[in-house]
Amino acid sequence: MARRSDHSREQLQQMAISAAIAILNEHGVAGLSARKVAKSIGYTVGTLYLVFKNLDELLLYVNAATLDDLQRAIMQEANVHTDPAQILKTMALAYLRYAQQHSARWSLLFSHRLPANQPIPAWFEQKITSVFDGVKMPLQQLHPELNESALLQATRELWSGVHGACDLGLSDKLNLGGRFKLEELIESFVENYLFGFAKSKGIA
Amino acid sequence: MARRSDHSREQLQQMAISAAIAILNEHGVAGLSARKVAKSIGYTVGTLYLVFKNLDELLLYVNAATLDDLQRAIMQEANVHTDPAQILKTMALAYLRYAQQHSARWSLLFSHRLPANQPIPAWFEQKITSVFDGVKMPLQQLHPELNESALLQATRELWSGVHGACDLGLSDKLNLGGRFKLEELIESFVENYLFGFAKSKGIA
Repeated sequence: MARRSDHSREQLQQMAISAAIAILNEHGVAGLSARKVAKSIGYTVGTLYLVFKNLDELLLYVNAATLDDLQRAIMQEANVHTDPAQILKTMALAYLRYAQQHSARWSLLFSHRLPANQPIPAWFEQKITSVFDGVKMPLQQLHPELNESALLQATRELWSGVHGACDLGLSDKLNLGGRFKLEELIESFVENYLFGFAKSKGIA
Repeated sequence: MARRSDHSREQLQQMAISAAIAILNEHGVAGLSARKVAKSIGYTVGTLYLVFKNLDELLLYVNAATLDDLQRAIMQEANVHTDPAQILKTMALAYLRYAQQHSARWSLLFSHRLPANQPIPAWFEQKITSVFDGVKMPLQQLHPELNESALLQATRELWSGVHGACDLGLSDKLNLGGRFKLEELIESFVENYLFGFAKSKGIA
């Protein structure tokens, strides 16, 4: 067991987040516990709870790191194409790929709820908004005439479909019957939604 | 402790499924265990495993019951309107309501994975297809010219968006910033998707 003075508060937090991510990757959401994280970094559970209010707060930090990674994975695709619709399709496929490759982290991000008396901090909400802002850019390029509110709504609607297809597809709930690949379904969805969005706004 | 001979195999299965649902409703996904189910029906865990291969099989049966309930909740709305687009919107809102009112069962349905060596039985896949078939009907009314394959795809794309909006909205991941209600976003999504689908098929 390391002594408390061996590491600063910030170092301890970072070590715990990294250890939690490694445990998640290896053992899944059900395999993650405060005891395992503490053991992995060589401290007691008591010390872990000096730097995080509770396990939920540690999970919130793990999810924040996942949101950062997810955003990087999506944004890497933003410069590959010049056509905004093509960019959105490529981003959607990058989101699927991230969900496939980091299934436990993806699952924790969307299944974890803070206790009712622990509100979501503003800095965490800002991370979610940042991910949507990345999706908003090509949508804005496609429809420069839209105001902020319409863009916000369209971004959420479009990404709901992408997220839903990933969630249903990866939990074997789409029953595509071998007729379509999930990737094809997602690309077709993005196309259909963009068509419809333009039409409903009287743009197309 | 009841004796094994007190109930038939089928009765034991039904009792265990009902007990598991009651535990889920009260204590959430994390609060569900074979031990608690066995205790609740007055049998040993050993007896429970005589009627279910493992906890995963019990959870599969719980999820099957949830799919039945979910389908009933959606289909109740199918006859309220005559306009197919309106029916689809009402079904989408019924899906959201079910997710809100039965959050633990909804969450288990989409988070549970069978072990890799335990394939999803055909009767369970059929239940998923039945839910989609309910959604397919109004879509078919709207576009009678579509073939089976195009309908299957459109149903999955449309419902991916509805599911994704529910999943993201209920896990506080949409950041609507108080500008829209989740219900409004879902209705607008259905409208936009239907517009776009018609347009991309050259129907509108």
